[in-house]
Amino acid sequence: MDALAALRDRLAELDDLEGLMRLAAWDQRTMMPPGGGPGRAAQLATLERLTHERATADEIGAWLDALEDAGGELGDLDRDVVRLARRDYERRRRVPADLAAELAQAASEGQDVWQSARADGSFAAFAPALRRNVELARAYAECVAEDGQAHYDALLADYDFGLTAERVREVFGRLAEALPPLVAEAAARGGADAELEVPVDAQKAAVGAALEAFGVDRGSWRVDVSPHPFTSWIGSGDIRLTTRYDDGRLESVLAAIHEFGHGLYERQIPAELARTNLGHGTSMSVHESQSKLWENHVGRHPAFAEVLAAALGGAGFEITPAELHGALTVVRPTLIRVSADPVTYPLHIVLRFELELALIEGTLDVADLPAAWNDGMRGLLGVEVPDDATGVLQDVHWAGGAFGYFPSYALGVLIAAALWERLESDLGDRSEALRRGDVAEIRAWLAEHVHRHGRRLDTEPLVEQATGRGLDVEPFLRHARALVA
Amino acid sequence: MDALAALRDRLAELDDLEGLMRLAAWDQRTMMPPGGGPGRAAQLATLERLTHERATADEIGAWLDALEDAGGELGDLDRDVVRLARRDYERRRRVPADLAAELAQAASEGQDVWQSARADGSFAAFAPALRRNVELARAYAECVAEDGQAHYDALLADYDFGLTAERVREVFGRLAEALPPLVAEAAARGGADAELEVPVDAQKAAVGAALEAFGVDRGSWRVDVSPHPFTSWIGSGDIRLTTRYDDGRLESVLAAIHEFGHGLYERQIPAELARTNLGHGTSMSVHESQSKLWENHVGRHPAFAEVLAAALGGAGFEITPAELHGALTVVRPTLIRVSADPVTYPLHIVLRFELELALIEGTLDVADLPAAWNDGMRGLLGVEVPDDATGVLQDVHWAGGAFGYFPSYALGVLIAAALWERLESDLGDRSEALRRGDVAEIRAWLAEHVHRHGRRLDTEPLVEQATGRGLDVEPFLRHARALVA
Repeated sequence: MDALAALRDRLAELDDLEGLMRLAAWDQRTMMPPGGGPGRAAQLATLERLTHERATADEIGAWLDALEDAGGELGDLDRDVVRLARRDYERRRRVPADLAAELAQAASEGQDVWQSARADGSFAAFAPALRRNVELARAYAECVAEDGQAHYDALLADYDFGLTAERVREVFGRLAEALPPLVAEAAARGGADAELEVPVDAQKAAVGAALEAFGVDRGSWRVDVSPHPFTSWIGSGDIRLTTRYDDGRLESVLAAIHEFGHGLYERQIPAELARTNLGHGTSMSVHESQSKLWENHVGRHPAFAEVLAAALGGAGFEITPAELHGALTVVRPTLIRVSADPVTYPLHIVLRFELELALIEGTLDVADLPAAWNDGMRGLLGVEVPDDATGVLQDVHWAGGAFGYFPSYALGVLIAAALWERLESDLGDRSEALRRGDVAEIRAWLAEHVHRHGRRLDTEPLVEQATGRGLDVEPFLRHARALVA
Repeated sequence: MDALAALRDRLAELDDLEGLMRLAAWDQRTMMPPGGGPGRAAQLATLERLTHERATADEIGAWLDALEDAGGELGDLDRDVVRLARRDYERRRRVPADLAAELAQAASEGQDVWQSARADGSFAAFAPALRRNVELARAYAECVAEDGQAHYDALLADYDFGLTAERVREVFGRLAEALPPLVAEAAARGGADAELEVPVDAQKAAVGAALEAFGVDRGSWRVDVSPHPFTSWIGSGDIRLTTRYDDGRLESVLAAIHEFGHGLYERQIPAELARTNLGHGTSMSVHESQSKLWENHVGRHPAFAEVLAAALGGAGFEITPAELHGALTVVRPTLIRVSADPVTYPLHIVLRFELELALIEGTLDVADLPAAWNDGMRGLLGVEVPDDATGVLQDVHWAGGAFGYFPSYALGVLIAAALWERLESDLGDRSEALRRGDVAEIRAWLAEHVHRHGRRLDTEPLVEQATGRGLDVEPFLRHARALVA
């Protein structure tokens, strides 16, 4: 069992290094003076390189061989430690250092090019960088693919191990079929969705009230402001959310609630998994399901609108809970993903999935991407794209070389709805508790059915275990129909 | 020259890792929620261990051998890179991993024991931990000592390479002789030193005015609050100060100015030294000379009192520059080092140096330390120590295993005074510029005579280069006499 102790020591070390990387990235986005940029880039690159060295060292292979031979003698937890360690080790080992360096450089340069191309609205200026990223993503997929695995599926495995393009296409196909009529119905009705103009102080009061109700305390959480809201987990007792306050609407509140969902997932991972390779959220989809559950099903719940409206009123912004709920659940097709409403949002993702799959499979040329984008927006959402800046250039993901990431945004929405249905079927309707801001049972249910597994279950097994069904579109469609009704 | 590139890459990596350690420590003291404590300790220990491994690896020795053989072909800068790399490498290699681990553990446990012993005022409770630290410090000195080097001198080399107990004793002997009569004179006069009661908002205005005058901008600096003021340099364009506001006096302002001096040193290290082993302050004494120069000679300058008084007045706290200057330069013997005035301060250090030297040399037993402390306070400062909490237990250094550190506090005061005399002799009296808050020439003079060398000159050579003389007590004594007059 010396191999087990050695492996667990190394995994703890890797977890420490990854926590430090998250700390350095969090600091960069919230605290660091701009002059720290070049130094921080060097520090992060050094940490990345050392982590890679330590994660792919030959001795790990020897420990894993010994432990796999001794499989029967290991407890359940250690068997999972070894299983995931083998998976991570093999995937990382398959990427040559040169390719990893080229991927990192292309991602960094791609984001720079994208930033100015978007500012100029010029897709042509971005196309060469995108083409390079697509080619490198294929080369990367070639390295990490299991025997016979398609390139896109190999990429998907970095975000949601075990999912396939085929499975995603099946699920998203159902969305592409069922949602557009709902959206058209909502759009045709139009109506009373005047923009809110909420003063920042009132927004802050609502953010504070929501997070306090959820149990965000200063002992283990931080809440800061950053240009793009995000969550970081530095250690199991150190969870950090951000939000932003730069418009008069309530995106600040929804963003804080969304990020809380990510944070709570990491916060409620059991202590016995800390500093192992199992002690974090299992996948991008399941992580997103946690943020979307809190955003869509708690934050936008009509009963919770009473808590938020009271906080806004206390800060001098008078609004009835019903008006507030109406404003938070307006359905209206728009151009921009990040500010899309809960019903149209998944269609933005369906489009991106179809396009990136075609790029990776080679059935869509980069030059044809803007036209395909604009056609897709017309077909799925019924909107005309006036320019590339608000069209194909709006997201950073492809510029940063991330292909296979987008599906998790919509899968998270679907999983959130399925979990919420199951949660309410177990615990009963949440209206009364949410009116009081009481989420203790929701937290406990999520801890028991989702968080406690850490990485021990992958996306689909976890969803099956928690909901009793596989990935399922119907709970979300029921939720969407109720919002449009 | 491949060895040079390899060495420089490794040194850059080590500098990155050390920057990350400072970031993690800064975050721990300013931002981290308390629940992050255990995780952070593990992250820091991992970083420390990896850094040690990378800094002591055999290949470095091989690169150094090759470069020392090729000495003549190297430029000046690279010769210094190699010279310091050899020194650091040999010192780190001489400490066995077991001893390093034991030192770290004893330091951590010692600080815990000290904290509760100080709260209880019980030296007896602390004595065993202190004894263990003394023994481990001797064992450590035994490892790192050059041939025939005394234990204490070997310890001193971690803070001020090249200094010896003999040299420190000579310098401090002169202080022990010349200062007590001055202090007695000031104490006998007593007089108008009523405590200020400055509201926190006014303190903040004064801190802001001072730092703005000094050129602290948001592009490369942060200023935060922490229980113990400190400075951290995360990268050459990322300097972070803290201060604290927990009393009605102006320690907040003096602390911020003091920390600025540390920060400016690191900020003005030339870019060509960044990410080498030469790109930081050269020693504890010289670092402290920078903080003390700004604190004692700028912050407490009668002309700069006009800037501070104006800021205080603007925030509603009316005081004349002369009253303010008087309050900032009261001389009065007290029990506590950290709040001592500029004249009595070095005597607190003289006492600690004599005692720690005797502990390490074995001429003073730990059990006899409180009595020796109390005798020393009576002899040097003329004060009676009422209890160990405000006596021998007041500082954390020995609890954390730091022996040889204290002298730098007083040496810094002496070097600051010598640099200031030389600076004014080069630039002329600073009163007129300081009345306007103009420190541009001071910054430039320090950059040229101190900061630009990085670690290329050790303490004494640097002082000689900058002042034209060796370590010298007289400039400080002239300054002290002027304050008491």
